[in-house]
Amino acid sequence: MSEKFSFQVLAECSQTKARAGFFITPHGRVATPRFMPVGTLANVKTITTAQLGETGAQMVLANTYHLHLQPGEAIVAKAGGLHSFMQWHGPMLTDSGGFQVFSLSELRQVTDDGVTFRSPRDGQVINITPEKSIQIQNTLGADVIMAFDECPPYPASREVVEDATNRTYRWLERCIATHQRQDQALFGIVQGGVHLDLRAQAALEVAKLNLPGYAIGGVSVGEPPELIHQIVEATVPLLPREKPRYLMGVGTYREMAKAVAAGVDLFDCVIPTRLARHGAALVQQGDRWNLKNTRFREDFTPLDETCPCYTCQNFTRAYLCHLVRSREILAYTLLSIHNITELIRFTQRMREAILSDTFATEFAPWLTQSAPTDSSNS
Amino acid sequence: MSEKFSFQVLAECSQTKARAGFFITPHGRVATPRFMPVGTLANVKTITTAQLGETGAQMVLANTYHLHLQPGEAIVAKAGGLHSFMQWHGPMLTDSGGFQVFSLSELRQVTDDGVTFRSPRDGQVINITPEKSIQIQNTLGADVIMAFDECPPYPASREVVEDATNRTYRWLERCIATHQRQDQALFGIVQGGVHLDLRAQAALEVAKLNLPGYAIGGVSVGEPPELIHQIVEATVPLLPREKPRYLMGVGTYREMAKAVAAGVDLFDCVIPTRLARHGAALVQQGDRWNLKNTRFREDFTPLDETCPCYTCQNFTRAYLCHLVRSREILAYTLLSIHNITELIRFTQRMREAILSDTFATEFAPWLTQSAPTDSSNS
Ligand SMILES: [Zn+2]
Ligand SMILES: [Zn+2]
Repeated sequence: MSEKFSFQVLAECSQTKARAGFFITPHGRVATPRFMPVGTLANVKTITTAQLGETGAQMVLANTYHLHLQPGEAIVAKAGGLHSFMQWHGPMLTDSGGFQVFSLSELRQVTDDGVTFRSPRDGQVINITPEKSIQIQNTLGADVIMAFDECPPYPASREVVEDATNRTYRWLERCIATHQRQDQALFGIVQGGVHLDLRAQAALEVAKLNLPGYAIGGVSVGEPPELIHQIVEATVPLLPREKPRYLMGVGTYREMAKAVAAGVDLFDCVIPTRLARHGAALVQQGDRWNLKNTRFREDFTPLDETCPCYTCQNFTRAYLCHLVRSREILAYTLLSIHNITELIRFTQRMREAILSDTFATEFAPWLTQSAPTDSSNS
Repeated sequence: MSEKFSFQVLAECSQTKARAGFFITPHGRVATPRFMPVGTLANVKTITTAQLGETGAQMVLANTYHLHLQPGEAIVAKAGGLHSFMQWHGPMLTDSGGFQVFSLSELRQVTDDGVTFRSPRDGQVINITPEKSIQIQNTLGADVIMAFDECPPYPASREVVEDATNRTYRWLERCIATHQRQDQALFGIVQGGVHLDLRAQAALEVAKLNLPGYAIGGVSVGEPPELIHQIVEATVPLLPREKPRYLMGVGTYREMAKAVAAGVDLFDCVIPTRLARHGAALVQQGDRWNLKNTRFREDFTPLDETCPCYTCQNFTRAYLCHLVRSREILAYTLLSIHNITELIRFTQRMREAILSDTFATEFAPWLTQSAPTDSSNS
């Protein structure tokens, strides 16, 4: 790991594998475990970076695939890089585009060289290779960049998943060979679908490469939550203790709690802004409220009296209900602010519990119950 | 005028009828001349009240018609009134609903009693009378409330306009008789279409009623800007000097400058937020830029280097271009912040010029040229 990056484990839970730490980057440190909001197109949908800062956000994501198509990495570089372009001065992470190439684009052709696909934006045929993904991410300039990986769908045959997992490893070697910037940390990604032996094999191979961080990819693609728990528990113990671990695309309470208990440090998910755009608020204990509901019409209390966010400090459920019913865009802004704050607070509470070694008891309801997870009603 | 309201003229232009003053309300004072942003449904579209405060907004409008339909004035009253419901702690004004009843609703039936129309929201048949409009506005609780008026369309026959103007006067007497709250100021509205003699007659009649403020209504309904200038110049001299004058629905540079020169103090218009939702920025000298234009793709300067708004202080034209091209909602938020700030600054600059008696020279280009106004490309 370059000297510009380090990971400090401050405390470990005595009963689970949870740990609390700091991930140090050139743009500041990230207190882990931590939820990272997603700013797909160099903005977190409907909120300003000033509002984003007030949610407690530390590290923010952006999407290589989307930014390559619009405005293109060259413009971002001319602006002085992603931090300067979108005016987020804290740590940033770009994904590799792999997930989007496989989930969003049509007419894909996958070879060992890379992926050719048709842009859903203008029909243009685009080729992305591991080298190209890294070059784009080097140009965008986030603190953490991700290896270009092949994400098999769920369900998929074992053969398809095995091929994707092996190709992802060969691509990772090419990503490492291409990566140049010392002020960026390249994280490797473990694939393997829902096949725990493939996950374990991939984790062992990737772990040998002495990367500054490791991610578990290819989850949250439609599989039952129970399988996410199994994948995490089969993979994390094989990744080095002294490096940050990132579970990609997961932002539901139970899955984050179980992953933290297994030793995961970082999470991202579009769920808080997506729910907001559907008029829904995330509230304590994983409930989701549709603010359009008539029960909120005359409810003059805040969404959550304990929440420090701008929305809860200023507005009532009745006002949010009115905005949602009026289809006012401000509803999405105020709900995004709350939902992001709420998920970050959830990971912060886990961190504080780990530091005081009360995690296993305080979060026991999340770790032991097998009741339906909050992802079931998404 | 109730003791809770007063209007102080601080300075008058030596060459025009422009004046600078303060309009004092129970929720604070408004430095005039001043542009007032419109918060139709108890929010200024796409921005929070915290962001609105940073634009320099002092008095903010809301629409009685829209709020009566959703959420209904009873809910706003239970929330503690409009200020509390939307968390705007400065002065507020509600319109009477007259303009919307005549411009938005179908199946209108107008009698001397009032207007019956079908709600575009749910088809419900609604009756609004002068008494009802005032009761709704008393319930909403803005600082300034407006008389219920009949707005004839443009063009309309002289007979139609004359009937509407006379009916508006009779309705005003009923509004005055109904109005109860001493902490709200009821403004009268002068109608008369584009007929200057009808305008003058209405102004003389309304001015006799010793109201706390007077508005010129029924303009900006499609007539050429030149007619707005003529209407303002024929009406304003007949309204009392010691009361605030409000030109309703006007927010274009030239029309505001000419109206200020005639002695108008207050303006409102949805133009800054509407333009923002079309990806357009208002810039100095009344230009409108479509940020989608390719000329902004690599323009890394702010919209306006002299503008103190959050958008100009933080983001480039290239970033705004990217957001508009990506159809990101944040574009509308950032452009609304700038556009509102820009129109308020324009009225602030006029105020400062009046105070230093440089208005007639500094704003001469707006007052003398007959070049196309900026409303021509709306
Ligand atoms: Zn909140
Ligand atoms: Zn600005």
